[in-house]
Amino acid sequence: MSAVNLQLDENNKLRHFLSIEGLNRDLLLRILDSAESFINITGRSVKKVPALRGRVIANIFFEHSTRTRTTFELAAKRLSADVLNLNISTSATSKGETLLDTLRNLEAMDVDMFVMRHGDSGAAHFLASHANPGVSIINAGDGQHSHPTQAMLDMFTIRSVKGDFTPLRVAIVGDILHSRVARSQIMALNTLGVSEVRVIAPRTLIPSNARESLGVHVYHDMDEGIRNVDVIIMLRLQKERMNGALLPSEHEFFQCYGLTEERLQLADDEVTVMHPGPINRGVEMATAVADGKHSVILQQVTYGIAVRMAILSMAMQPSSAGRES
Amino acid sequence: MSAVNLQLDENNKLRHFLSIEGLNRDLLLRILDSAESFINITGRSVKKVPALRGRVIANIFFEHSTRTRTTFELAAKRLSADVLNLNISTSATSKGETLLDTLRNLEAMDVDMFVMRHGDSGAAHFLASHANPGVSIINAGDGQHSHPTQAMLDMFTIRSVKGDFTPLRVAIVGDILHSRVARSQIMALNTLGVSEVRVIAPRTLIPSNARESLGVHVYHDMDEGIRNVDVIIMLRLQKERMNGALLPSEHEFFQCYGLTEERLQLADDEVTVMHPGPINRGVEMATAVADGKHSVILQQVTYGIAVRMAILSMAMQPSSAGRES
Amino acid sequence: MSAVNLQLDENNKLRHFLSIEGLNRDLLLRILDSAESFINITGRSVKKVPALRGRVIANIFFEHSTRTRTTFELAAKRLSADVLNLNISTSATSKGETLLDTLRNLEAMDVDMFVMRHGDSGAAHFLASHANPGVSIINAGDGQHSHPTQAMLDMFTIRSVKGDFTPLRVAIVGDILHSRVARSQIMALNTLGVSEVRVIAPRTLIPSNARESLGVHVYHDMDEGIRNVDVIIMLRLQKERMNGALLPSEHEFFQCYGLTEERLQLADDEVTVMHPGPINRGVEMATAVADGKHSVILQQVTYGIAVRMAILSMAMQPSSAGRES
Repeated sequence: MSAVNLQLDENNKLRHFLSIEGLNRDLLLRILDSAESFINITGRSVKKVPALRGRVIANIFFEHSTRTRTTFELAAKRLSADVLNLNISTSATSKGETLLDTLRNLEAMDVDMFVMRHGDSGAAHFLASHANPGVSIINAGDGQHSHPTQAMLDMFTIRSVKGDFTPLRVAIVGDILHSRVARSQIMALNTLGVSEVRVIAPRTLIPSNARESLGVHVYHDMDEGIRNVDVIIMLRLQKERMNGALLPSEHEFFQCYGLTEERLQLADDEVTVMHPGPINRGVEMATAVADGKHSVILQQVTYGIAVRMAILSMAMQPSSAGRES
Repeated sequence: MSAVNLQLDENNKLRHFLSIEGLNRDLLLRILDSAESFINITGRSVKKVPALRGRVIANIFFEHSTRTRTTFELAAKRLSADVLNLNISTSATSKGETLLDTLRNLEAMDVDMFVMRHGDSGAAHFLASHANPGVSIINAGDGQHSHPTQAMLDMFTIRSVKGDFTPLRVAIVGDILHSRVARSQIMALNTLGVSEVRVIAPRTLIPSNARESLGVHVYHDMDEGIRNVDVIIMLRLQKERMNGALLPSEHEFFQCYGLTEERLQLADDEVTVMHPGPINRGVEMATAVADGKHSVILQQVTYGIAVRMAILSMAMQPSSAGRES
Repeated sequence: MSAVNLQLDENNKLRHFLSIEGLNRDLLLRILDSAESFINITGRSVKKVPALRGRVIANIFFEHSTRTRTTFELAAKRLSADVLNLNISTSATSKGETLLDTLRNLEAMDVDMFVMRHGDSGAAHFLASHANPGVSIINAGDGQHSHPTQAMLDMFTIRSVKGDFTPLRVAIVGDILHSRVARSQIMALNTLGVSEVRVIAPRTLIPSNARESLGVHVYHDMDEGIRNVDVIIMLRLQKERMNGALLPSEHEFFQCYGLTEERLQLADDEVTVMHPGPINRGVEMATAVADGKHSVILQQVTYGIAVRMAILSMAMQPSSAGRES
């Protein structure tokens, strides 16, 4: 997959934002620094900057998501962009050809940027490879492949709490096999040079060659895996997988992998607890942990807007005026 | 229920707007006066004031409502606020815990104010009791409990037609027992000191101790009840209750309690006819009455925007800048 | 139908925009000229003009349409208007009386303009005949009657490619009988004085007296019909009609009437190919034609926004300030 070429222009500036793969440490840090400058805005009374005034951003969500769509909408509005929300059922566009027609039509309406969530892995790359000059694609989650803005807001949260990535040991717990969030987090953590990334899950929920392909340490035992870690990221459990053969009951999952106050003792004293939300309380973690002093789950939400503002403004191409006339 | 404490801050300024209960005459009059100042704006070509520019108001509707949501959205936009519309099916958030998570997440997105409609009585109070400093809750209808912005627009309409509340006799007709609108209207009318509030309905649709608990005069006979009244408020009949044992057929209801031109003769010559809408023509009232010279039903809609502008701007807390940094 | 009176005010300025019928050549040209002036805006970085700032436009769509609704929304936003999107299922408003109540309520909210799509032919005329002074109705498609903004964007596209209408031979292919698009296009082409309008379809899909009532030349053979034409407009095939007796299979339709590269040889060398979208590739036309050098299908989308900006701003009445106070 030529993600490198698609995501960067000839001057190594952001062109599309599709996956963490293919982006180097320097670019990731520039995104975090840009987000830092937007943090102040979200605390102000008038939460707006004119950066993208008059530009049009279309949120195209083929999968339902209130939280991610809302934070992208707020990010775009704080940059003064106009936002189009298009909820499209996948059934209506089952063929790649028709997805391309959707792109072409919105391009013809002078939409400058597409924020897309799609159930098919690779859908964002597909659009980016066909997008006209001046039009950018932002991946808001594609199948089981990638969710790079989530990973970046997690990195921002970690940096804001820990300061430096280098010494950190980070554990990611849950369904690693199917999680686009985990895949993007692992790449970002490794690119930013943390000391160690661990994944913790039952055998059925970890890719067989995870150590080699992802560059992680694999644990099947929770107590062992979180020992001395600085950051624990709990993944959201997809309940629809519960009924299948891959996962035991919610209760059993909580027994084996749920984060409780007792277990938290095993980690570093200053451990940070994260979750992409929404939480299944009593399944991935106890309520006392979710709302406890180690949790930064709500900061993740707040930082998500600033990080998305950074990515939207960095990926926005110079005005279409140039390409049209 | 400590509505008093929740709704007012230490300086007796509006903090949340949850119910008429606990608000005194002076505050209700201040809301009406503030709305008066916004009436001119809605008649202007550029229908905007910059009062809430850069502030974010989330409409969270767990029950469907085109009219109420639309007027809140227009009110917010005329104050230059940014509006988020979130339609959430109740099924997705059946537990109070999760409603709290919804609040916390939107707070983390720096949403300044929540306008909520919810099927459970007390839902708005629940949110207000947990809201962070700087975040306000506006009740757009909770179960069978309260719909205070509707009551305030009705008071505004009555004052604009009648001038003074003191001498008025007001009749409210329909399903008093289940109506959050009636409950809020009765409290507002009594707080504003009208001469007499009457409720008119079959025995099955009036609380057994209405006279004492609500401070109203109870009538089961329509002709008797509307005699010499200055204002008649017809409630909307919830058709889903028709099938139950509580109500006879639509036709029978119209026979007994429908407002016709003949019946209207019994009231004061200058009687004002109101309805919260949408009207079931031929059930609650005859079309000739709905569109007749005594009806102010469409003014209620117009005034509703000004009244909501007043409430949104009075309840908006000083910028989150203070609380965050 | 007194479309003339409804659509124009006493000074022959646009009052409502309901159908092409009743509008003269001069007015159609003025719309095209106005749209021309907006084309530059859509190519600019800041795609906004303050023309309709503070005015409120409600999109009321009783039939689902992502494309038309989106271009109307973009057009309104580029004119700086506030937009209300109301998706209303027809079932909730089955009676004309209730459609009128919807109008009256939105008027009472000081909405200045209604863009309506409705399944009933004549619904836009009905609203316009009841609208208050100062409130305008724009028809975004009513039943099988009229879709005049689509026709105007098609005229704009033709003029931008061909320069002059007078010498043109234009063929419209597909289900003429049920198409509000075709009806509006034919009237616009004849009003603008093209040399010849041809309709091409099986006997079952053309009104019996088309030649007289519509002023067109009728062809049932595709090869014969498109010979030497300057413009070919392919209509979208409504797949739900496929199952009935009126139409053969998709495959058979493509065999008889589908536009292929070979067939295109029969038309003028400089022939222009149009389609209102979305295309059923392989049914109405081959992909090679849809994406080929004669196709202006995406320009139609782009021009659609400028044309709608022109119509919205020409039909917007002087501020309600005048009528209210």
